[in-house]
Amino acid sequence: MTQNTSIRLAQRPNGLPVADDWAQVAEPVPEPGANEFVVRISMISLDPAMRGWLDDRPSYLPPVGLGDVMRASAVGEIVASQHRRFPVGAWVEGAFGVQEFAVSNGRDVTLVDPSLGTPSMYLGLLGSTGLTAYFGLFTHGRPTAGDTVVVSGAAGAVGSTVGQLARISGCRVIGIAGGPDKCRYVVEELGFDHAIDYKSERVRPALATACPNGIDVYFDNVGGSILNAALSTLAMHARVVICGAISQYNAETPTPGPSNYMNLLVRRATMTGFLVFDHSAEYRVARQRLAAWKDDGLITAPETIVAGAVTDFPEALLRLFSGDNLGKLILDISGTKDGHQS
Amino acid sequence: MTQNTSIRLAQRPNGLPVADDWAQVAEPVPEPGANEFVVRISMISLDPAMRGWLDDRPSYLPPVGLGDVMRASAVGEIVASQHRRFPVGAWVEGAFGVQEFAVSNGRDVTLVDPSLGTPSMYLGLLGSTGLTAYFGLFTHGRPTAGDTVVVSGAAGAVGSTVGQLARISGCRVIGIAGGPDKCRYVVEELGFDHAIDYKSERVRPALATACPNGIDVYFDNVGGSILNAALSTLAMHARVVICGAISQYNAETPTPGPSNYMNLLVRRATMTGFLVFDHSAEYRVARQRLAAWKDDGLITAPETIVAGAVTDFPEALLRLFSGDNLGKLILDISGTKDGHQS
Repeated sequence: MTQNTSIRLAQRPNGLPVADDWAQVAEPVPEPGANEFVVRISMISLDPAMRGWLDDRPSYLPPVGLGDVMRASAVGEIVASQHRRFPVGAWVEGAFGVQEFAVSNGRDVTLVDPSLGTPSMYLGLLGSTGLTAYFGLFTHGRPTAGDTVVVSGAAGAVGSTVGQLARISGCRVIGIAGGPDKCRYVVEELGFDHAIDYKSERVRPALATACPNGIDVYFDNVGGSILNAALSTLAMHARVVICGAISQYNAETPTPGPSNYMNLLVRRATMTGFLVFDHSAEYRVARQRLAAWKDDGLITAPETIVAGAVTDFPEALLRLFSGDNLGKLILDISGTKDGHQS
Repeated sequence: MTQNTSIRLAQRPNGLPVADDWAQVAEPVPEPGANEFVVRISMISLDPAMRGWLDDRPSYLPPVGLGDVMRASAVGEIVASQHRRFPVGAWVEGAFGVQEFAVSNGRDVTLVDPSLGTPSMYLGLLGSTGLTAYFGLFTHGRPTAGDTVVVSGAAGAVGSTVGQLARISGCRVIGIAGGPDKCRYVVEELGFDHAIDYKSERVRPALATACPNGIDVYFDNVGGSILNAALSTLAMHARVVICGAISQYNAETPTPGPSNYMNLLVRRATMTGFLVFDHSAEYRVARQRLAAWKDDGLITAPETIVAGAVTDFPEALLRLFSGDNLGKLILDISGTKDGHQS
């Protein structure tokens, strides 16, 4: 009988997750019950939000329980099915967790449409990453052609997409990223107008220089001092979109909030938080547009794919926080456990 | 020739303004030029925002210059005029400054309509105070009947009006104020459903208890730890309206921002700053509605009127920050300098 190895939360991390925070468990792969199917997982999405799910405090999703399989989006092929809508051989995306096989009843599972993109794109551009960029920018940032749009975490999965969507909307796009390689990448490969290297530049004066008319839309993935600097540079009626705060996720003590928030009043601006799940009714249209822009060469969807086993998850996750990945970070386990990559 | 005594900014305050920060100057009252008129000032509005105007940093209005007459809204009677639309004997409201007489060309000056209210009401309910409450709540807070609305500075000029407007909109209204007298006042006299005394209660658990379904609209006049507590108690899709931050205005060192801002994401909420000036096109309708509600007994417009001379301004201003005024704080100088109160 085939074994399923899963990565489970052994204890709650303090700061960056360490090896001892995780446990691996091997169990037989169950048979699907009525209206269920079994997925052999090929690729696992690594997301900054994962860090928040490890803390025992109320949030938009319940914390991952101690002993539970780590929550993660993943794609894979259906290898056994008792479900009419999910046949064997179909590829699917869902919150299957950090494991080799998952049983699902199909709830919140998306069938991969090969005419739109590859399975891995259903974790990136066509998954919650790209959809987060799409709805965060368009629904909450509401850019108009000619606006100055600033995005932090610009070389990351969401930020790189936000900047490109703003560019094709006729906006002037400034990225904030760490290091010369990432800054060069977003300008030369992704078509941003300018990039600010927060590791070597003082962000506040750099933003003031790069945005002489102020920031119309600020899309924040990082929080902390960069958010505060952006708040100091708002244009009138600016929209600040709160998507994440990766600079804060591993903080061991509470970090100060954005002391410049009163500029929201001075500039009559709005700061909005959102979650992509609230827009699920519009996912289909958004995926079609994103895929079309990709096909037309208007959007690049960078991916950093780490090939390994499911047991490499704890180490791979840390690459999100060390800042050395470009675009979407994915753990590809298809080379192991008789999986295969599409 | 009649003398005009004015209060001018002598030096920029560090923390609470002290006597040495001000100078008084006596000069002859000028004659009005073509298309000008002279107002004999009767009442001067005392507003928390004044503190911000004293600091030398960019904001929504330029700082008051050293040696300049202190900026203030005031009402008075026209005593000399070369202006067709502003005849002698008319009462007017405008940014006339802290002085006994002002010369104006009529720009941004409002004629007092006695059918709507008294001159002092043009500093309070029918002035920028009431209009700030009206547009901040209705345009930016967007309350729906049944919503839970929380307002800080609830016994102050703006907060007391916000709470009453929310009440007549069918909302459940919780005020946050300092001390048992103010808390009793907003519940018993203004019809708030509940009040939290931030001087004797822990605001965060008190809000959680008072708002079991969370806060739909939070109208903030105070900033600091009370804003942070409110951010921890938001309902889904809550609207946080930033009107002021009186707890911060006299801080001598930068104060931390609201560390709970990431709850905007968890609750898909919005934090918006606004200034009443942006709504001037709608002032007329708003004044008519506010006056009608007052006439119908649905709104009380509390005023704390300090009778004195214009030279009492520096001391009267401090009452805003010591927290011992109810409602609109006004310096009435009509008893001096051959003025008279209407």
